[in-house]
Amino acid sequence: MQPLSRLLRPRSIAVVGGGAWCANVIAECRKIGFAGPVWPVHATKREIAGLPAFASVADLPGAPDAAFVGVNRGATVEVVRALAERGAGGAVCFASGFRESKSETGDGDTLEAALVAAAGSMRILGPNCYGFLNLLDGAALWPDQHGGLRTGRGVALVTQSSNIAINLTMQTRGLPVAYVVTAGNQAQTGLAEIAAAVLADDRVTALGLHVEGIGDLGAFAAMARAAGKPIVAIKAGASEQSRVAAVSHTGSLAGSAAGARALFDRLGVAQVETLAELLETLKLLHVAGPLAGTRLASMSCSGGEAGLMADAAARTGLVCPPLVPTQAAALRAALGPKVALANPLDYHTYIWGDRAAITATFTAMMAGPVDIGAVVLDFPRPDRCDGAAWEIVVDAVADTAAAAGKPMAILSSLPETMPEPAAQAMVARGIVPLCGMAEGLAAIAAAGRARPGRAGALLVPGPEPRAVRLLTEAEGKAVLAAHGVPVPRRAEAASAGEAAARAAEIGFPVVLKALGVAHKTEAGAVALGLADADAVEAAATRMGGAAFLVEEMVTGAVAEVLVGILRDPAHGFVLTLGAGGVMAEILGDTLSLSVPATASEIEAALAGLRCGPLLSGYRGRPSADMPALVAAILSVQDCAVAHAGALMELEINPLIATPDRAVAVDALIRLGDTP
Amino acid sequence: MQPLSRLLRPRSIAVVGGGAWCANVIAECRKIGFAGPVWPVHATKREIAGLPAFASVADLPGAPDAAFVGVNRGATVEVVRALAERGAGGAVCFASGFRESKSETGDGDTLEAALVAAAGSMRILGPNCYGFLNLLDGAALWPDQHGGLRTGRGVALVTQSSNIAINLTMQTRGLPVAYVVTAGNQAQTGLAEIAAAVLADDRVTALGLHVEGIGDLGAFAAMARAAGKPIVAIKAGASEQSRVAAVSHTGSLAGSAAGARALFDRLGVAQVETLAELLETLKLLHVAGPLAGTRLASMSCSGGEAGLMADAAARTGLVCPPLVPTQAAALRAALGPKVALANPLDYHTYIWGDRAAITATFTAMMAGPVDIGAVVLDFPRPDRCDGAAWEIVVDAVADTAAAAGKPMAILSSLPETMPEPAAQAMVARGIVPLCGMAEGLAAIAAAGRARPGRAGALLVPGPEPRAVRLLTEAEGKAVLAAHGVPVPRRAEAASAGEAAARAAEIGFPVVLKALGVAHKTEAGAVALGLADADAVEAAATRMGGAAFLVEEMVTGAVAEVLVGILRDPAHGFVLTLGAGGVMAEILGDTLSLSVPATASEIEAALAGLRCGPLLSGYRGRPSADMPALVAAILSVQDCAVAHAGALMELEINPLIATPDRAVAVDALIRLGDTP
Repeated sequence: MQPLSRLLRPRSIAVVGGGAWCANVIAECRKIGFAGPVWPVHATKREIAGLPAFASVADLPGAPDAAFVGVNRGATVEVVRALAERGAGGAVCFASGFRESKSETGDGDTLEAALVAAAGSMRILGPNCYGFLNLLDGAALWPDQHGGLRTGRGVALVTQSSNIAINLTMQTRGLPVAYVVTAGNQAQTGLAEIAAAVLADDRVTALGLHVEGIGDLGAFAAMARAAGKPIVAIKAGASEQSRVAAVSHTGSLAGSAAGARALFDRLGVAQVETLAELLETLKLLHVAGPLAGTRLASMSCSGGEAGLMADAAARTGLVCPPLVPTQAAALRAALGPKVALANPLDYHTYIWGDRAAITATFTAMMAGPVDIGAVVLDFPRPDRCDGAAWEIVVDAVADTAAAAGKPMAILSSLPETMPEPAAQAMVARGIVPLCGMAEGLAAIAAAGRARPGRAGALLVPGPEPRAVRLLTEAEGKAVLAAHGVPVPRRAEAASAGEAAARAAEIGFPVVLKALGVAHKTEAGAVALGLADADAVEAAATRMGGAAFLVEEMVTGAVAEVLVGILRDPAHGFVLTLGAGGVMAEILGDTLSLSVPATASEIEAALAGLRCGPLLSGYRGRPSADMPALVAAILSVQDCAVAHAGALMELEINPLIATPDRAVAVDALIRLGDTP
Repeated sequence: MQPLSRLLRPRSIAVVGGGAWCANVIAECRKIGFAGPVWPVHATKREIAGLPAFASVADLPGAPDAAFVGVNRGATVEVVRALAERGAGGAVCFASGFRESKSETGDGDTLEAALVAAAGSMRILGPNCYGFLNLLDGAALWPDQHGGLRTGRGVALVTQSSNIAINLTMQTRGLPVAYVVTAGNQAQTGLAEIAAAVLADDRVTALGLHVEGIGDLGAFAAMARAAGKPIVAIKAGASEQSRVAAVSHTGSLAGSAAGARALFDRLGVAQVETLAELLETLKLLHVAGPLAGTRLASMSCSGGEAGLMADAAARTGLVCPPLVPTQAAALRAALGPKVALANPLDYHTYIWGDRAAITATFTAMMAGPVDIGAVVLDFPRPDRCDGAAWEIVVDAVADTAAAAGKPMAILSSLPETMPEPAAQAMVARGIVPLCGMAEGLAAIAAAGRARPGRAGALLVPGPEPRAVRLLTEAEGKAVLAAHGVPVPRRAEAASAGEAAARAAEIGFPVVLKALGVAHKTEAGAVALGLADADAVEAAATRMGGAAFLVEEMVTGAVAEVLVGILRDPAHGFVLTLGAGGVMAEILGDTLSLSVPATASEIEAALAGLRCGPLLSGYRGRPSADMPALVAAILSVQDCAVAHAGALMELEINPLIATPDRAVAVDALIRLGDTP
């Protein structure tokens, strides 16, 4: 295949088509100062947007590195074929009516396959996409307006939605944008490949993704693993309705929100919830890189703002560590006796305009056990007020940050009270301008989650298994036991008398279940806590039938835990831990991890559950045997990994955790033929 | 007292003091076009900011309706006295160093009392405040820059933080602001009085409050009850750290976040979390008034945006109702066969520029079971792009809203992609411009919570009781039983033998407790489920001692419920319902209501708990006797109301709900002398 970089960093551009979209591409290239040749192609027009046109691709004076194909969908296939034959580097396929429009004609899939075949080893973006902006080199294969400007260094934005791409370019937050690339239908070139290509550009500092569906999971994981630069993602599909919306438009499969969260976490990708948070996080990462932690020093000259910062930080999961004595002493010296000292700090306006005192104050705040500092500062409206006096605070932040060796942000309460020129100047000085309190603090939290190059292992599902069936409880427990998952001692019996005998061998109390009965509990086909052989025989007789399961009754539960593993085609195998028994559904107290999870990840997830305190000995109660519990969960995972080709889902509810063991007392497994 | 309206809507203004702050007041009055006389007062200067100065208050040509007092704190008292003697309407007291600065000198309280005494029946705002902007009449008793412009109609902003007030005036969201008032120390005039005064102005459409502490709870409730206009509030103090910040600066008591939420809900005040949400909610209320409901029709020309809207709506608790068949038919007619129909709707760009088709699409969406419509529209940067084509969508929204008779918003994904002139034009046309997806949807949710004039009853606590003590369990249950709260049958006994006899009278099984033992459970002083007289006698003998409580053992629990009532001096008596027993602490599954709560509010709160499904018969289990449970909780509340003067706190954990009754099996009550 042609390297994607030839398309994305072209030295020559062809624009095929005579419509307004194509004229726009030429105009946008001119506007952002593309230095190489731009060659319009049209069968009859002699000139397009002021440039002489060539009658065909074959007539071009050279093989273009990049082409914008702005003709209808049928013609697109032929133009792409001609470009490939001409030796072009790649093409943006603008036309729609391919795979995404199944409802319309039914032939979209066929046409898309023909397009890919026509391209051969030439790169194509799309179809059904807007193309890209390379604002580093000034290439705009982009048929519409945008808000970007040239930059020498900046972040890359890659999205599946052209409209969202346009809107992101309109930001006024001081974020330098290097690339904007839309992926469209990803017929040949997927999100992960695009991401890898822009990340490979040394001038790109961080990557922002808007994702509807991950697509090729293995490629995505490999991209994240190789990135070496921070990645931030906003993932559509957290709600069921969004899933419908995504499917209806792009044909992508948007999987479960929990699976996506687990996946991004495993890959060191920071997930955010809004486009504003995406931009703010990228800006922070562009200026300061990933944060070592998110302990925050908050500084403002108003108690009202200090109060709002404390609330917003708590909502965002950020900690503002209390002042240590040396900080307090330095602050007292800088601020005098009138100011109450705390973090968040209200430093009042007594020192307004005094650069040295402000710097001393900020320096003292940054000297504490914090990873980043945020100075709340709202600029006045430039059109009605004078903000010159505000610059002293900016100077003080620059002085402080340089000396402290820790990142510092200036954060405006409202997004609009950070004028764009002020934000741009801060970025140039190595200060992070954060626009808006909620989104600014969300960015700090997200920048702490971005862990470039620290992607963990991921088990990528193969093709979905066929002929899936639900194992019986006995089969399921046998499969689990074979992988070392502790299950109750158990035996089958063909009569009431045999059940009693088996129970005596197992040891009392026991659980008796009649086999072959659906909805056992409702049908009276389960008896718990049978204390002796007579009770077993009586219960079996009452149940009737000729097939029974006799099981050890597991007693001494500290807590019941749910353990589930689900094949999520979009995000991989997802291990879910939660409060077990009836609480699982009522509380929805679950956390999910990608498979394979490590022992320490499992421990952390268990501790993070709302029911977590029960496991560690709540209020003098006995605690669970945590090594046994984690080992049992790891064995469940081993079982899933061993059956990865066939496994659809596996659920143990509950895994009973006692002070000295963990036992899977119920199991549901759906397996298919290994494909 | 002088009416506050004379101060807030002055026809003459005096400015006392010769510093820059006072010159600013005069300049700002001139800038926004104050029509009446402005009289500077200074002992020696002949002219201030271009106006002739008077040597003293006594020398003024008339009694000013409003005065800005910009002298030091000691002189402020004397100037206020002189203004009161001169018959002025009121004064803004700018100086600090009063009650808020106790750490400094210790005499702040005394000086503040002197200031109030000097004012007599003349109104004062502050001290330690910035004053106010009346942008309806053009009066700026305001010593600094601001971003406001004159308006004929708008919202009022009242805040305890002058800095937040300034920043709010800098908004670029198209929100017309009528008043900005800062409350400062509220020495004489409190938040509630200010709020009532601005709400009484017919040109004010809605009120936005930034609150650190409610202050006079009764006055606040009366204000909300009388308002007749929607009120939105942002309350500092959701986190412990914020509480510290608020106390350290203003001396206000910021009470519990749960109490504040309950209070605002009771009073029909819509609470929001960020300043951006405050402004967006006010804008929605200004244009459209409170919403009947928050069922949303979402429209965008991009599937990416439809997906983000679905996610964001779900996060915000908004519902996007599915399309009904008539809507789908109308949409199919307007949009043709290619477009997948759903809510949120991606109407694609096929009809871009076709006002009739866009109007037909929006009209079909608004014809469904929805309360408000939101069209996602991001304008291009006006400085780099041309947004003329966007106006057709605005026209279509205006056409649709007028015909549909339902409010409609145009919502930008990012706050900055709604240019201020576009937002202003929308407001003028009755369209709500919402800036930013997250904050715009939060505003819709909040506007659904604003219920002007529908404030419910509120029990306002009197002075805190003295000599508070913890009742014994027996005392507590007796108090509760006297108000009709069901408690277990019980008896005291002085010996093991008597305990057995009492148990037989009560009926088995019973619970036995040794009295006079702290930490009963840990000390082995509680025995549950004693099935006969022998078991009782044996247990009592084992416990030892000479005082026992024998209680009926309540069996058949469907769920255990926590019921607590706490005196919160800042927000009133707060009734908290939650998951009972050990789950109360682990899950934190609680909801709070202001006292007195109605039966239906209690029912809704119980249903809203995570453990709520247990009460209504989860998965075939028995359901609780809800009338009995609600009646028991109402009786607990009756008990609290009857003891309101003395009650500090009351907690029943658990109240056991069974299929046929609800019984309080444990009770903690702290009562004092009624003051």
